Amino acid sequence: MTTMQAARLEAVKSIPTWTSLPVPAPGPNDVRIKVKAAALNRRDFWITQGQYPGVEPPHTLGSDGVGTVDSIGTEAVTSVSVGDRVIVNPGLFWGNNDAFQDAHFEILGVPRDGTLAEHIVVPSENVAACPKHLTDSEAAALPLAGVTAYRALVTRANLQPGERVLITGLGGGVSSLGVLFARALGAEVWGTSGQGHKLEFFRETYDIHGFNYHSDTWTKDAKSKAGGFDVILDGTGGAGFNGLLKLLNPGGRIAFYGGTQGTWPEILPQHLFYRQLSIVASTMGSPRDFEGMLNLVTTHTIRPIVWKTFEASDLGQAFDALATHSQLGKVVINIPN
Amino acid sequence: MTTMQAARLEAVKSIPTWTSLPVPAPGPNDVRIKVKAAALNRRDFWITQGQYPGVEPPHTLGSDGVGTVDSIGTEAVTSVSVGDRVIVNPGLFWGNNDAFQDAHFEILGVPRDGTLAEHIVVPSENVAACPKHLTDSEAAALPLAGVTAYRALVTRANLQPGERVLITGLGGGVSSLGVLFARALGAEVWGTSGQGHKLEFFRETYDIHGFNYHSDTWTKDAKSKAGGFDVILDGTGGAGFNGLLKLLNPGGRIAFYGGTQGTWPEILPQHLFYRQLSIVASTMGSPRDFEGMLNLVTTHTIRPIVWKTFEASDLGQAFDALATHSQLGKVVINIPN
Repeated sequence: MTTMQAARLEAVKSIPTWTSLPVPAPGPNDVRIKVKAAALNRRDFWITQGQYPGVEPPHTLGSDGVGTVDSIGTEAVTSVSVGDRVIVNPGLFWGNNDAFQDAHFEILGVPRDGTLAEHIVVPSENVAACPKHLTDSEAAALPLAGVTAYRALVTRANLQPGERVLITGLGGGVSSLGVLFARALGAEVWGTSGQGHKLEFFRETYDIHGFNYHSDTWTKDAKSKAGGFDVILDGTGGAGFNGLLKLLNPGGRIAFYGGTQGTWPEILPQHLFYRQLSIVASTMGSPRDFEGMLNLVTTHTIRPIVWKTFEASDLGQAFDALATHSQLGKVVINIPN
Repeated sequence: MTTMQAARLEAVKSIPTWTSLPVPAPGPNDVRIKVKAAALNRRDFWITQGQYPGVEPPHTLGSDGVGTVDSIGTEAVTSVSVGDRVIVNPGLFWGNNDAFQDAHFEILGVPRDGTLAEHIVVPSENVAACPKHLTDSEAAALPLAGVTAYRALVTRANLQPGERVLITGLGGGVSSLGVLFARALGAEVWGTSGQGHKLEFFRETYDIHGFNYHSDTWTKDAKSKAGGFDVILDGTGGAGFNGLLKLLNPGGRIAFYGGTQGTWPEILPQHLFYRQLSIVASTMGSPRDFEGMLNLVTTHTIRPIVWKTFEASDLGQAFDALATHSQLGKVVINIPN
């Protein structure tokens, strides 16, 4: 039996360690991939902390990965061939309704073994040709954050060319891709962050201006400098949510995919209905969202922001970066293969 | 100069009184209507209370009206002719964007003189042929509540045949038409009210089952008897709003057009995004919404619920009913003409 190395979480509140496991065999409708790079998401951190529902180690973590096809199940219907460079859609078994995921939906990397391994087996419909302009690190940084940002902005908020967008929490995986996607779609993009160096990075690198939400006057500043916003992409929530609602133009939409700052404060509906606002929840994305996202990335040669690519042996450092929120862009792990 | 009777609000915190005023002349793009019946809305009550922004009496109130065309402006482009029975769209100057109303948007009845008068002048694009199956009282009961319910359910919540709908506050103008519209659109309709006799009326008259929201267990009852809801139409807001959100199915939408119970409580975004929920604000409706609403009413011979038709001389009693929330369905005023 051939074996491989996989980053195994053996117990909660620990860091996954490289362990020898059997190379998995693809089922009839699966594809097996030799992984070249994987990326971490906040989800991986929560899983290591035991703060993700239904987690019982051991698990091989990782939702994001890029690699080459090394085996195709006997009945798999797929356009990829052995040796092709492919990217993995981490949303498994979404179902047929684009409006919401099926009850069987799961995200790659728990309970099903994830991408932090030399080989991974996924359903053939979750494998797509990797956009050619991306390095392995950039490709690994794309799938989960990309499909989340795309669905929230395009499918849910229906962002249109020429609209003005505010993206909160610059520097995160979803928000960073949100900036690049919104710009590619012809929107005028502004951002927020609680950390000055992140605002500076986006200003210098992408000419995106932003506001520090720790400032008491940031919503006033945003209103006077940018004007109102047609779309807001938010992963923060918390006490500042009312301020975001106030910044929406008539017909404005706020798409939210998270709430790192916790509960929204009390909201007066009278402040919302005259402006015909929409507050739309979004999580992950359908196979159509994933395909649309790859098309957008390919058409506009968008490159995800990679903060650092760690060697596999430095996995602990990579998880530390997640824990301390110090990264700006994605944390990628090189898989020697 | 010919004169007419109009119900004039002379000062806030008073009831409008019938006063002799000049019959208004239509401008070049206007139509003048001899009013047969008008209906009251909560808006009229707030205006009498001085709790409506920008109100400075005297004013002729009334947003809803039906009557016959008695004069057409020289340049008006309209399909109606003198003598035609017409209904008035109370949303003036919406503008070209269906997503939200123009800054010039206003609602008939303040600042522009309203329908509680023998004659009224409105822009020709706000006049439409009255659905033939409606009595004058029923027609007067339709416009404002109808366009509000239609936009919220159809345009904003995108209600589909076979979906399950919950309509809060049965007995109000918008909610009552919401019930009839949702049923006509092929939805399965449930309701709520704080008053048992309103629930009973809807059960007996329309076979619509409901829940008393004063019961501590009503959301639990709703979940077990009805299951979750795909769409909720809400004009109440308040502390119960979180309970409504919990009742939404994956992909569910709550369309709200008011908030009689005040601010929403704190909301945890994590309870919403996995279900891909949408919270959409709605107010009034575009000309396209008004046209769609009239088509729906005509196709399904829908009859608005008229609580009572008061004689013009009993206007005080009609306003009292609004003040005490005792009505079930619309309060209509017969205009002798």
